[in-house]
Amino acid sequence: MILPDPLQKLINALERLPGIGPKSASRLAFFLLRSGDDLADELAQALHGLKERVAFCQECFNITSAGREHCEICDDPRRDSTLLCVVEDALDVLSLERTGGFPGKYHVLHGVLSPIEGIGPDDLKIQPLIERVRRGGIKEVILATNPSMEGDATALYLRQRLEPFGLRVTRLARGLPVGGDLEYADQNTLLRALAGRQEMD
Amino acid sequence: MILPDPLQKLINALERLPGIGPKSASRLAFFLLRSGDDLADELAQALHGLKERVAFCQECFNITSAGREHCEICDDPRRDSTLLCVVEDALDVLSLERTGGFPGKYHVLHGVLSPIEGIGPDDLKIQPLIERVRRGGIKEVILATNPSMEGDATALYLRQRLEPFGLRVTRLARGLPVGGDLEYADQNTLLRALAGRQEMD
Repeated sequence: MILPDPLQKLINALERLPGIGPKSASRLAFFLLRSGDDLADELAQALHGLKERVAFCQECFNITSAGREHCEICDDPRRDSTLLCVVEDALDVLSLERTGGFPGKYHVLHGVLSPIEGIGPDDLKIQPLIERVRRGGIKEVILATNPSMEGDATALYLRQRLEPFGLRVTRLARGLPVGGDLEYADQNTLLRALAGRQEMD
Repeated sequence: MILPDPLQKLINALERLPGIGPKSASRLAFFLLRSGDDLADELAQALHGLKERVAFCQECFNITSAGREHCEICDDPRRDSTLLCVVEDALDVLSLERTGGFPGKYHVLHGVLSPIEGIGPDDLKIQPLIERVRRGGIKEVILATNPSMEGDATALYLRQRLEPFGLRVTRLARGLPVGGDLEYADQNTLLRALAGRQEMD
């Protein structure tokens, strides 16, 4: 069946989103077509010129509204400026903020080192991080890149770069996820959980 | 964290789509923000005024481009007009068309009978179906509503309504899905597969 052109175009665009295959794309397109309210138009408005309306914080490279130099977090005087959490991307900031348990500020690398994909230190926001640390006032840097091969390698590289500044450099704890099951934990996670075992208090 | 307003609005809109929760919505929004090409604007264009650009076929109530009276299938002289397949919605037409195995035409009910949700025969395109059959030329009606309780009830109701016309009324076969596994088939499906067993040829 040749679908009406507007619908086919919408399905094609939706298919390009991550995790959305041809069937989901059709289902979403038909849902948007049927939805009683003006969800389709609302979504269209939210998408229109998205990139022009969002900018990156010039301090931590987190996202912020266009026209602002700094993000909400960097501008917040209540945040602890001596504690810096380095993450791969802005989504990670969102996850950490959801916990409500981090009082410091962030630095978004916008990626990880990946020799295979040709991503080196100059492709990431590493130089601005070094300069931020050099300016002083930071006592601890938490390297919160993902617990993956690339994330670990990037953390290792950053630790070396930060060594001369004599500050505390930490990495997020590895172990069993809360609510997890020993039986289903993979070998590496279990080994890490063993190695990182702590006194009960 | 308070996200930039344009991004938050996008996440809110995406969350209203079926099967997309808060985490997926954030992930999609950030993907759209980062995507190198102009996917966000392309999607915005495809969504803008979607409903105004899509209409329903006046014969079978399948979707078609705005301004057209009939859909591609109803207008296609190569399709068998004596064979009519009744489906719940336009997505089902898409699924059946993908098989490439149905030579006839369709009739889209736009829902199923559901006393609980207060959907009666007048809320569906049942009257137009009866009139279509009354006009003559149709030899077989395949009731291809979903094999669910509501789908079965709707099929049963339609069979009664179509009885006076003396045409062949069929229902899609029930049984084991191709590539399926006896071990994982539910009881009802297995019972149906047994009852509907066929001679090997």
